[in-house]
Parts: sequence; C-alpha cells; structure tokens
Amino acid sequence: MGASDDPAKTTGRPQRFLAAAGYAGTAWFVNPRREVVQGEKAYPSLSELPGVPDHVYVVTGVDAAIDTVAKAAGLGVPVVTVLSSGFGEEGAQGKAREDRLRAAAAEGPTRVVGPSSLGVVNPRNGALLTGNAAFGEPDTPVGGLFVASQSGSVIGALVSRARGRGIGFAGLVSTGGEADLSLGEICASTLDDPGITSYALFLESLRHADHLAEFAAAASRAGKPVAVYKLGRSQEAAALTVSHTGALAGEDSEAEAFFRACGFVRVNTFEGLCEAPALLEQVPADGPVHPRVGVVTTTGGGAAIMVDQLALRGLSVRGPSRELVDRMAAAGAPVPHDLIADLGLAGAKHDVVSAALRELQDSGEFDLVVFVIGSSARLNPELAVQALAQRSGHAVPVVGFALPEAPDAADLLASSGVPAFRTPESCADAVAAAFSRRSATIDPERISGPPVGTPELLHEQDSAELLASVGVPTLPAVALETTSLEEDIELPFEFPVAVKALSDQLAHKTDVGGVVLGVTDVAGVRKAVRTIVADVGEQVGATIDRVLVQPMAESGVGEVLVGYRRSADVGPVVVLSTGGVTAEVYDDSAVRLAPVDRATAEEMIGEVTGLKILTGHRGTPAGDLDALADAVVAMSRLAVEQPSVIEAEVNPVRVHTSGAMALDALVRRVRT
Amino acid sequence: MGASDDPAKTTGRPQRFLAAAGYAGTAWFVNPRREVVQGEKAYPSLSELPGVPDHVYVVTGVDAAIDTVAKAAGLGVPVVTVLSSGFGEEGAQGKAREDRLRAAAAEGPTRVVGPSSLGVVNPRNGALLTGNAAFGEPDTPVGGLFVASQSGSVIGALVSRARGRGIGFAGLVSTGGEADLSLGEICASTLDDPGITSYALFLESLRHADHLAEFAAAASRAGKPVAVYKLGRSQEAAALTVSHTGALAGEDSEAEAFFRACGFVRVNTFEGLCEAPALLEQVPADGPVHPRVGVVTTTGGGAAIMVDQLALRGLSVRGPSRELVDRMAAAGAPVPHDLIADLGLAGAKHDVVSAALRELQDSGEFDLVVFVIGSSARLNPELAVQALAQRSGHAVPVVGFALPEAPDAADLLASSGVPAFRTPESCADAVAAAFSRRSATIDPERISGPPVGTPELLHEQDSAELLASVGVPTLPAVALETTSLEEDIELPFEFPVAVKALSDQLAHKTDVGGVVLGVTDVAGVRKAVRTIVADVGEQVGATIDRVLVQPMAESGVGEVLVGYRRSADVGPVVVLSTGGVTAEVYDDSAVRLAPVDRATAEEMIGEVTGLKILTGHRGTPAGDLDALADAVVAMSRLAVEQPSVIEAEVNPVRVHTSGAMALDALVRRVRT
Repeated sequence: MGASDDPAKTTGRPQRFLAAAGYAGTAWFVNPRREVVQGEKAYPSLSELPGVPDHVYVVTGVDAAIDTVAKAAGLGVPVVTVLSSGFGEEGAQGKAREDRLRAAAAEGPTRVVGPSSLGVVNPRNGALLTGNAAFGEPDTPVGGLFVASQSGSVIGALVSRARGRGIGFAGLVSTGGEADLSLGEICASTLDDPGITSYALFLESLRHADHLAEFAAAASRAGKPVAVYKLGRSQEAAALTVSHTGALAGEDSEAEAFFRACGFVRVNTFEGLCEAPALLEQVPADGPVHPRVGVVTTTGGGAAIMVDQLALRGLSVRGPSRELVDRMAAAGAPVPHDLIADLGLAGAKHDVVSAALRELQDSGEFDLVVFVIGSSARLNPELAVQALAQRSGHAVPVVGFALPEAPDAADLLASSGVPAFRTPESCADAVAAAFSRRSATIDPERISGPPVGTPELLHEQDSAELLASVGVPTLPAVALETTSLEEDIELPFEFPVAVKALSDQLAHKTDVGGVVLGVTDVAGVRKAVRTIVADVGEQVGATIDRVLVQPMAESGVGEVLVGYRRSADVGPVVVLSTGGVTAEVYDDSAVRLAPVDRATAEEMIGEVTGLKILTGHRGTPAGDLDALADAVVAMSRLAVEQPSVIEAEVNPVRVHTSGAMALDALVRRVRT
Repeated sequence: MGASDDPAKTTGRPQRFLAAAGYAGTAWFVNPRREVVQGEKAYPSLSELPGVPDHVYVVTGVDAAIDTVAKAAGLGVPVVTVLSSGFGEEGAQGKAREDRLRAAAAEGPTRVVGPSSLGVVNPRNGALLTGNAAFGEPDTPVGGLFVASQSGSVIGALVSRARGRGIGFAGLVSTGGEADLSLGEICASTLDDPGITSYALFLESLRHADHLAEFAAAASRAGKPVAVYKLGRSQEAAALTVSHTGALAGEDSEAEAFFRACGFVRVNTFEGLCEAPALLEQVPADGPVHPRVGVVTTTGGGAAIMVDQLALRGLSVRGPSRELVDRMAAAGAPVPHDLIADLGLAGAKHDVVSAALRELQDSGEFDLVVFVIGSSARLNPELAVQALAQRSGHAVPVVGFALPEAPDAADLLASSGVPAFRTPESCADAVAAAFSRRSATIDPERISGPPVGTPELLHEQDSAELLASVGVPTLPAVALETTSLEEDIELPFEFPVAVKALSDQLAHKTDVGGVVLGVTDVAGVRKAVRTIVADVGEQVGATIDRVLVQPMAESGVGEVLVGYRRSADVGPVVVLSTGGVTAEVYDDSAVRLAPVDRATAEEMIGEVTGLKILTGHRGTPAGDLDALADAVVAMSRLAVEQPSVIEAEVNPVRVHTSGAMALDALVRRVRT
C-alpha cells in the first residue's frame, strides 16, 4: 500500500525486493495515483484488490496508514505492517494517532506490526516485505535463525554480517513501535514453525515484558534457544532509550534478572547476536555451571588469546589429562601435557586435527572444545578446517575461531554445523553465554507493575510484622505510648534493649535521633523516650506518640541488605546486597524476579562479591548463609503472599554464625 | 640459510615469498646439499657467498643455527634471524644452547632476532624474510604501521585482518625468544624510519621491560604512538604465559602501570591492535581526560549501540548544543536536539553528511566525532561514506563505524585517513584508548628488579622512622624494654596510648595479641606489656624484649593502604588501595611506577572505587585527600631515596578531615 514507481525509494523497495527474490506467492500493489508501478498493475485502493491479502505493508504517510488499517480491518486482513513513524514517540498528538491506529485495527481481526516497522522478511519464500536497503542484495542467506529487532536497521546489518559465513535466517522482523503486536507476541507466533531453530532479539528497552515472558516460557518448552542483545548496559544508553522511545528503560539489573528467568542468554558483542545462536542450539539449557572447556590449536599465540578471553568471562580452560595426551600421541596427534592442546604449526593436517578432536571429544574430559585455527584457516581450509567441519554432531560440541581473517573457513564450518566466530571476544562471549543458559522459570502471570492505589509507608512494627508473616526472621518488639510512661513497663525479654521512634512519617529514623541503643533498665527506657521525643521533634518537627522497644541484637559476622520491589517493567524482584556504603560504591548486588527458591537464593549470595567476607574469610568465622538464603526466599514470597506491597527493605539483616535476623524493616504498600 | 627446494615447506617459503614480492635487493640461498633451490643457485655455506649479507635468516635445526650464527659473526653479518625453537623454553639444555647462541653472536658484531622467530618483514621493499604462510598471499598491504609480536602467528593474522580495509604495514617482526635482540630494542632501532608512523605490539609477557621503556621514551619524543595488546588480563592466561615462555608474567596491574608510564595505550580487542593505531596518530598524547565525544548517524539503533559501548568504557557522549542544532539545520543537516545527531535514513546523502560533519567539527563543542553509518555504507559508499572520507585532516578527528558489514567503506575511509572500525566494541575501545594516551614519563634507568642481598624485616619503629625519613606522616613513638618496666616511664605525649609488641619477627602482631589500645596511665602500660609478653609468647613462642608506645590515633574519616614494592618485571611501584577485607574482595587498587608526582597520586585516589567514601559521601565529612596524596608521593620516594627497600606497607593510613597518619608500618629491605 503506497508502492512507489521509483525502485530506489524506500517506498519502492518492497516491490523491487519481492520481484528480485522471486516471491513464491502473489503480490498486489496499491497506488491511487498510478495505474502501473515498476511495470506491475497498481490498484487504486485496498478494497479493489482481487482478494483479501494475508499481509498488507503500508508505506504511506501517517494518516493514510491509519486509514489503510481501518480498511484492512473491514476486509478481514489478518496482519498490517506500518512503516510510517509519527505515533507514540511524538508526544500527545502521536499517542492520539496510535490510539486511532489500534482502534482501527480492533474493528476487525487485524493485528498491526509497527508503526515505524522497516518490515517483515521471510527469506525462505522470498517474502521480502521491507524497505530496508540491505535486502536489495540478492540471496538473503537462508537458515534457522529468526531475528526480531526494535531497531529496523539492525535486521539489515545482521544479514550483511552473516552473509558468506554460513549463518542463515528463517525470518527477520523490525517490530517498530509495538503499538499493537509486541516483539514477544510476534516471536511466540512463530514457535510452531519447524524451520526456526533459534532466535536473536535486539532490544532497546523492555517493552511488554509479559509477552516476552510468554514467548520465553513457550520457547523453553520447545527447546528453542534465544539470544538477546540489549542496549542500556550503561546508564547513558539507558537514558537514551527513554528519550528515544518513550518507553521506560528500567534498570539493567532488572533486565538481567528478567532474561535469566526467561532462559534467554545475553550476548555482549554485536556480532555475537548472529554468531552465538548456532552454538546455543548445541548446548542444552541447564548445562554445567563450571563447564570443562578444552582448547586445541595450531597457533599457540592465538590459543593464549582465547584462554585469556574465556577466563575473563569466568570460564576455566582445562588441559587434557596425562592419559589423554598419551592417547592423542598414539592416535597421531601429539600435544604437550599442558593447558592448551597445541598441535603446532605442523599439526595443521587433516588427519592430525581429526584425531586430536576425536580423542578430545570422546575423552569425557570436556563439555566443549574450542579449536583456534592458525594461518591454514585462510590459506588451506582443506586441512584443519575441513577436519574440524567433520566433527560436528558430537555430544561434545566443537567451535572454531580462526586467528586470521578467514571467511571461507567460517562459511564451511558454520554450514557444516560447527559454530564459527570472527573475533576472540565474540567466541568467548558466546561460549560463556551458552553454558549460562537455563530453562525458563518465569511465570508470565506475575509480570505486572505495582498495584494501583494510594501508597502508604508502614511503621517499623507493622513492617516487621508483615515481613514476619512471610517468614523473615525479626526481633521481638513491644510498642509503648510515649504519653503513658509513668505506668509499669514490663518487657517480655531481657535488658539491654534498643528504643526506637515508631512513626510512619520516618523512613530514616537513625539520622534524626530516633534511636537509642544499649538501654539497661526501665529508667533508661523512660530517659531514652524523652530524648527521642525531643530530638525528633526538634529535627523534623514530627510528634512521636509511640516507641518500639526491642532486645539488643547480638553482634554478628556481617550485615546485608535484602530488598524487594515491584518493578514497573518486570514485576516483583528481590535484591540482595552488602548494604551500606559498600553496596553503593561498588554497585554490588544480585537481583532476581520474585519469588525465588533456595537454590536461586544461594546463587544470589554467591554473586554478591562483598559477601565473600561471610564465608569465613581470613580467619573470621563463617556466617550462617543457609539462614540468609532462607531470609531471601522469605522476602521474595511477598510477591505471592502480599501483592499489595510495592517495596520492602530490611537493612540490615544481621548474619550470625547461627541464624540471621532483620534489625530494621521498612514496607511500602498500597492501601487496600 | 637452510633454504628448501620445496616452496610449500616453512623452510622453502622465504625464498618463494621474496620472489613473489619482487624483493628489491639481492637474495642468496644456502643449502649444503643442493646446487639449485627453487630454480636459484644454492651456495654450500655462508662463507662461500659472493659478499657479506645484511641479514641472514636461518631456517635450519637448532645446532646448525648456532653454527650459522658463529659463522655469520666471523663474517661480520649485522643481523641473523633464527627460526628454530629448542632454546630457552626447553629447560636447562635449552638454556645452555641459548647461552651458546649468544656467545657465538658476541664473537662478532652480530645481533640475533629470535630464536623461534617466524621472521622479519618489510613489505615496502618486498623483504619478506619469513616462514609465516600468510605472506604467501600477494600484495602485503603497505602503510605506516610497524608490528612487533612475541607470537609469530599474530603477524600473519594481523595482515590478513587488515587486508582490503585500508590498513597497511611498514614492517612486521616476530621477535621470538628474545635471546639477544629484545622487542624493545627492535622497535627502538626503527624509530628514525620516517615511513613508520605508529606501532602495534603483541605481548605475551613483559620481558626486558628496560628496553621497552627506552623505546617508549624515544617513541614519545618522536610523537609516534604505540598500541599494545597484552595477554594475561586473566590469572589463567598469566599462568599460561609463565609455563609457555619461561618468562615471569608479572601481575597485570604492574603491566598496566608500566604501559601508562610508557605512554603506550592498551587495546582490549584483538582487531583493535591493527585498527586503533590510525586513530592514535590523530589524537595527540595528553589529550583531555574527559573528551567530548559526539555521535552522528544515519541509523539511530546503531548509534545507540555506540553510545552504550563508549559509556561502558567511561566516555560520555554529548549532543550538539541548541545553537549548533540550529546551524546544522541551516546548513541542510537537520537533527533533533538530542544526545545523538541523528540525520535519519534520509540523511545518507553526500551533502547532508558533509554539512553535518563540517558543523560538528568546526563547532568547538567536540574533541572527536564518531559517525555510525547505516546500510548505505555497504550499498552506496558514494553517499555518506564518501562525505566522511573527505572530512579527514581536521583538528577534530572523525572516525567511522558501519553497522552493516562494509569492507569497501572501511577501505575507502582508512585510505583517506579516517580511522574505521568493524565492531562497535573495537571502535569504542580505540576511542577510549586514544584519549587515555599520555606522554611517556618513564625513566628507563629505574627499571630494575629488587636489589641483591639478604632481605631483612624491620620492626615497626625502624620501619616508621625509615618511612618518616621520606616524608610519610607517622605517629610519635617511644620504645620501652619489657625487662626494665620498674623504672620511671615518661612519655613525650599524653594518655591514652597504644602499646605494641616491637619485634622484627612479627609481621602481623595484632593477630597474636601483640597490641593493646586505649591505655590510660602508667600502671596500664605495665599491665599491657605483661599481657603482650604472655600472649605473644604463648601464641607464637616469640620473646618480646621491647614494646612501642604511641599516642592513640584520633578517629578519622577512613583508612587506606599505601604500599610499595620493587617488582621483578617493572621496578619500583607504589600501590594505593582501600585496605582490609574490601581491597581483597573487590580487587580495588591503583598501581603506578614509583616515584609519582602529586597529579599522579591524585589520579590514583580517583581510581580506587572504595575511596569515594572519603570524598564526603552521603553526609559523612570529606577526608583530607591532599594529605593522602602527599603520603602516596612520599611513599613512592622510596624508589629514589631508599633503593635497598624491597617492600613497604602502611596499613592503615588513617585519613582525617585534616591530615593523614600512618598507624602502622612495615618495611623489608636488603641488608647493605
């Protein structure tokens, strides 16, 4: 719709591309002002077409696009893709247009891709319904990878970077503004396509996380891996995303937690987005946490680069055992007994490489083998590369990285089912990503922002009681009226005690003189109360009617912060961090979607660097990490048992050699 | 020497390559067993050549190689390059061979490259004296980059990766085992070659750091930039280097400090090693610490990737000012007033891009402009790419990154003097590296390992006095004999005091009951001494003859560790870290070659993440960072004033709101 007679224009390209690709179906072109476009009949309007199309690509301006969607809905067209921009990203007027677009579609069975969509491509049948100039090149490489991208230019860039390297595509969609069909919905709708074996997502922000979660759960069930490149690792790009798309970017740590729960793997190099999926298809989800990676090579220098890059990503390379070295020598592939199985320059022979790889793969000593290929990769691919290409299909995957530029080697390898990488960085990144892949644990039902209502801050006692109700260990406490202190004070616990102002007006009571510690008798309690009433009154002008009295906490091994919040993007999350200044300065925390199980809580404890001091570091006693894990699990249960809670924080949880205890508690919820 | 008749063999390649490259000089081939090799006359021995060659490449086995070096020395050959391995890396026998090799060369004026050298290449005159198969391809690209590599395969790999991308080489040397000529000496010898404009070093370990330092100082004076890729960022690769080369890898933080002092820039992507130098040639050393980087684009998605990658490396992108946006619009290059100057798809026109770049470069608002090019880079390089290529030579450099695969664009750009990058990672890495480049401050004289002699540990008082002598602020102290406590005790300072065991046997006295704090009177001092004598005696069996009495230190804003050591690789270094558990757990420290000036000490303080709490974080008072910087400078003066000191540590230095004070001191030196 809106097809131009000029094949060079963005609006003329889809027709040209369809013709060049030999689209297997029927294409009709609509242009009210012409009878012929690029040599084909042009229809004056959608309603005058010879039939109801399966898919309409509207390349007109914004108003005509809305009009077309309305007409398409009337005719019963299932999908309309909209190229035009000028919708949600353009303020109030744009949002009004977007509403009109959605309303128009809702008049019929029509779903909309876009707006601002550079198109939908299926290279398998030549359906190049796109204005992206990159598809003007012949022979879009066909394969099993499906790409969905919030950036339109990325679909063309990935195709050009994959070209001639044995990487092929089953489909590519520029999802645009996601006014109707979200990226998650589009991907989910393709899961039953047996020609699609893996997914690559390019995300600028986390929009419609609920749909992504549904897709993730289904993709995990189907065993189809998903690689994600997401902008916003840096604060700068996160801010950029907000201003560019109007969507809330959300914190990157939340995105990370979300991807993990989805079973998506995040790649950190741009080329990794098209290189990694082939490897993901060969490493099942829930693989070993500490995979045994072997490196075999004909170039020691190149292999050392690879070991360095793998180690920087937390992967430890291991060398073949003495016995395996002996077997390799007997098989005609001698290597030193070392970290790297170095065949040497002279080892770049078909039979030597074959024997080496066979022995390494069959040894049971490795979960994956990386072959770092030297100059023969470029100049004599019939030697080492050919031998490597023949080692695909084994339960222990092999991957190839050529130190020189070697496009033919990459093509041969990837076409033979051996994942190949152009840079050591993307290779190591993909290997690390592959073993980090987990089955999806996400519950799409739980992805919802904060509940609607008036937020209220609970005072410490109510906060502690609410947290205790989900299983967070809290200190016993007694509340006293500050006006009735002359009465007898009886406490159900021993002195010394702590006395704290109890007020839902005070989020940070320590800072304003609201806490007195180490009180040893009843007279001391009365004195502490008078001090608190005076100090808090003076400093923030608040009247303190009640105080909380608690036993003094025993000293512990360390203190941590356990938090919970309902993120607008990804729903409830639980946060563990060192607390205090350290957490802020080092940005040292672990975030997961809530609720979490014990194993996940333990994983979180292992992830917070600063918590190493709780493991019995340098002669200090070890903290009770089981108790801490229980506290994290309990906190995360808020997601299930207390849906009205928006935010909760225990800072600190004190960890003892036996047990853990919340020393303070803060809960914000909506009034129900 | 040892030329094979078989052009496919490593030993036959140099002859084949020289012929194919049309070597401009004369080449003679020596083979005692043949009269003709590859159609050329073969001489039976070195001494029967028609003249004395400038350079001999020995491709024989190890014994014949030593023999050849001896003959060459007799003839007065200036340089022999040795391919054979089997020297220093092969245990005691190998080391003996290496000694023989050096001794043979020393009989004449001969210097040796190698052993294990894959060769020496000068593509400018066709001197392809190498067995590296990669040079079998015609037309090694010629340019201004000189490569020196400890790995032989890397020289071929870099040439293949640079090919067709406008990057060319003035020379490449595989330095091998550096038994005689070190990598630093080789590079230094080329500095007067006007055809060499920049250097790329591939290092497996820091060998002969003194020679590297001499090269660095001279390269800095000559204004020729040096990029380094060094293995061993990870512990694993560092270990690998040790086992593979027999050289001591040294800590990566020391290498980092060394490169900084050398004015080298370290690149973190392998391709960056051949891509970055072109940019380094355009950004003078000692550029702005916080460069103003602009991003202009025809693809918003691609530009967002770049912003993210730049920000991850500490660079902040800034958008054009409102005024500049207006000027750009007037010049025919409209962009939104935003972080990215996004010309849009429609902006991929020669005149639009020209105008945009001109306005950005001339504005005075940027130190560098990155152009992220969309699909036109691949398909229509005559549009945006051609315009970009014409913007080289401006004081504000422009660099290009094409989101799609676009080799022709890279070739055109690089050939026109616009640095071009294939991945967003290497582009951002190179930009960060370029602005981090400093003039060399290194003093090659100072690169020497620990002094020879018997090491001794000084006790606290002697340690403190030695550190005080170089200007480290220390507490006053009085030493008391533990056997004469009945005498009068008079202290030149007020109570309360600290009492500490004084013994050169105790490096960590706090751990064994050797310290009593907060002693308020003379009787308390006597009691403390008795306790210390008993506790230390019981715990480590040491007899404590003396104690040290010091005034109790005032409480401060925070505590840090200042250390000093003489590294075997790079000579004296000074270390600043948070001290205590945090430093270990977070690996949070700054290292520099010693001595340092005030500005460098301040830079170090800024680098240690945990020291943010000293800057007046969250309402706590700010520490006296000037005093801390003075203490770091003082400590680093050990390198100049106390050359017998091997190691020194003040842990902690307490930082007050005014002043800083060493609370403990430990010095190890060699007995003179």
